[in-house]
Amino acid sequence: MTTATIVSTGEELLSGSTVDRNSSYIAQRLSCLDVTIMSHVVIGDDQERIVAGIDAAALQSDIVIITGGLGATDDDNTAAAVALLCGTVLDRDDNAYKRMLEYFSIRKRQVTDDDIKMSLVPRGSEVIHNSTGLAPGFIVNHAGSCIIALPGVPHEMKQMLDNTVMPYLINRFRFDSVENTSIRIVDLKESEVNAKIREIVKPFDTISWGITASSGIITVTFRGAAGTRRDMEQLIDHAQKIFLDRMLVIGISYPEEELIDSLDRLNMTISTAESCTGGLISKRLTDVPGASRVFQGGATAYSNASKIEILQVPDALIETHGAVSEEVAVSMAQGARKAFASDIALATTGIAGPGGGSAMKPVGTVCFGFAVRKHVVTETRQFPGNRETIRAVSSTYAIDFMRRYLINM
Amino acid sequence: MTTATIVSTGEELLSGSTVDRNSSYIAQRLSCLDVTIMSHVVIGDDQERIVAGIDAAALQSDIVIITGGLGATDDDNTAAAVALLCGTVLDRDDNAYKRMLEYFSIRKRQVTDDDIKMSLVPRGSEVIHNSTGLAPGFIVNHAGSCIIALPGVPHEMKQMLDNTVMPYLINRFRFDSVENTSIRIVDLKESEVNAKIREIVKPFDTISWGITASSGIITVTFRGAAGTRRDMEQLIDHAQKIFLDRMLVIGISYPEEELIDSLDRLNMTISTAESCTGGLISKRLTDVPGASRVFQGGATAYSNASKIEILQVPDALIETHGAVSEEVAVSMAQGARKAFASDIALATTGIAGPGGGSAMKPVGTVCFGFAVRKHVVTETRQFPGNRETIRAVSSTYAIDFMRRYLINM
Repeated sequence: MTTATIVSTGEELLSGSTVDRNSSYIAQRLSCLDVTIMSHVVIGDDQERIVAGIDAAALQSDIVIITGGLGATDDDNTAAAVALLCGTVLDRDDNAYKRMLEYFSIRKRQVTDDDIKMSLVPRGSEVIHNSTGLAPGFIVNHAGSCIIALPGVPHEMKQMLDNTVMPYLINRFRFDSVENTSIRIVDLKESEVNAKIREIVKPFDTISWGITASSGIITVTFRGAAGTRRDMEQLIDHAQKIFLDRMLVIGISYPEEELIDSLDRLNMTISTAESCTGGLISKRLTDVPGASRVFQGGATAYSNASKIEILQVPDALIETHGAVSEEVAVSMAQGARKAFASDIALATTGIAGPGGGSAMKPVGTVCFGFAVRKHVVTETRQFPGNRETIRAVSSTYAIDFMRRYLINM
Repeated sequence: MTTATIVSTGEELLSGSTVDRNSSYIAQRLSCLDVTIMSHVVIGDDQERIVAGIDAAALQSDIVIITGGLGATDDDNTAAAVALLCGTVLDRDDNAYKRMLEYFSIRKRQVTDDDIKMSLVPRGSEVIHNSTGLAPGFIVNHAGSCIIALPGVPHEMKQMLDNTVMPYLINRFRFDSVENTSIRIVDLKESEVNAKIREIVKPFDTISWGITASSGIITVTFRGAAGTRRDMEQLIDHAQKIFLDRMLVIGISYPEEELIDSLDRLNMTISTAESCTGGLISKRLTDVPGASRVFQGGATAYSNASKIEILQVPDALIETHGAVSEEVAVSMAQGARKAFASDIALATTGIAGPGGGSAMKPVGTVCFGFAVRKHVVTETRQFPGNRETIRAVSSTYAIDFMRRYLINM
């Protein structure tokens, strides 16, 4: 059994002003290897405590992955702490140093002594190249344990973990491959998904599973021992039969990715008209690299005047039915389709709160309009939660509705 | 010096499928007491490891706060682990038991043996009433340490921490009140802020500080011992003089909040025209409750056609200067101001990547256009990082530029 401990450093984590998300990311990645995670530990920036923390982690596990404390500021002490623990000194990594000089010279900025600190690594360590930032990571061995240090900046850490650390660990520890799959379900309650999964997993006692929900997207993670690939395939087949178009294509994380992909294949374009979601749908669609091939544009029509002016929603429609109505939602979608010359348009109008609710239309009421060429569809939904949740779930619902519409078209 | 360790239990946390947010909440609450937090630790549901984890935490600190593992299912082992550690047994808490019987009888449900498990606490412990759930918490003393166990369900944990645990700790440890303040700085590098803060904090050796950056917003947190209020005020005054309009108003977390607030006071309205930020600026502005008073709407003009159609950007301008140019940015801002009939408009056009860059306009190049009534301003910036970072930092830059413009108007 190979064991691992994940250590995050930073006063901002210890004091609670920032939530530590790096540890969960690393834990998720390790879950596809045959590794038992012992604990995650958050410690501050004090060098002595970092030394003690890493020492304790190394004592209980074969692999220690540390994030944070590799930068240029006074509270960045990880490299020095690891050197101290290993009884060695810090050396400049020439590659990282050269890259930093280039980076600053292009930007016409002075290199300070603080900056140079970023290119220091413990002597004798294996350097991990940082292609999206300045501070390299490193791997050292100490007391029979493999200690890996990565920057705390999430996108740098992720890239280095995925591109260097994971292949390194697989090669060094010769892991048995375990089977990991996750599926994503939309438009069902977490407890409904839970009950269905419990049923279909029953025949497979070698497969464990967990469930988690965010923005109306439910992720079920399955983990099977080595040699359970056939079981896993059967299980996923079964899930597909039960959830049908509510289950995203395997390997796709978000409904917006699948939607953009479908539109691209169908050679169709899309636009948005958002009121209560305030640009979130357009933001999510354009989060997908390559969205520009299919996304024509969107209007956030917050005021009635802008609904009338930009989206050509008839004034009378708003007066008769109210801005939050299926009639206005459909008219917004048609308006966006024309304004942006797209094949398809999504529209939202609703009450995200905290103010603006009424007995007839309480906070959480959202009307959706979908225009697909000349065809229109409308729906009204009632979502629980606060402003942030209502906006997140509404955007998922709108994107996912369109995704499923295209599947069934 | 009173010390504390925060322990979270749960396989879903250890495996990374759920992010641990309870620890940050507890740490934030403890930060107003004179307590030094030693570490946060995440462990799984295994009873033996919980015993070892709590034991190690008690060894290093006066207070141990544990969340999770007090429920009715097989993986809830915290009460048993604490009892084992203290060499005692579990007793039924009659109050909690009676509440549970009532709860289930109203809902016409059978009480199972599993359910009864929820009302068990270590013998001799002080019981913490759970007014929003069924499992009580408890406080026990072990090896000179005060061990406090709370449920993992966030709203139950928060309520019990705030209503019972905080008053209990203040009373028992007779804490001095400490001073906590944080400031937020924009449009400077983290290392620049770090150097300036280092200087101004020098005279105050009773004040410690930490620094963290996200989406181009740098947060500096100060913490002073009891009786340092005057020092803290002087320090903040000093920071204000150094950072001027780059420092957000104290008590305001994000530039968008301050911008919306300023517009509201000035009785001015705003709209957006976004290309590379894809709706993120409009999303961030409408994240602020009450934004509808000043935000008229926005256009995400991704395609050239939509820039021309909706924002009335002259075709020739795009052909001559390219879609990513200051000329087009200004024209987009003017177009949005007209289309949405607002006093002010922000526009972005740039290359967020990963594709689309060139030698002249590499990935990260963003042109901004600002229209304030008839007056226009434009800027070009070069941001590092990946697609997500470039979009986040660009949106902060645009929002903050406008915020500072209004201050200096």
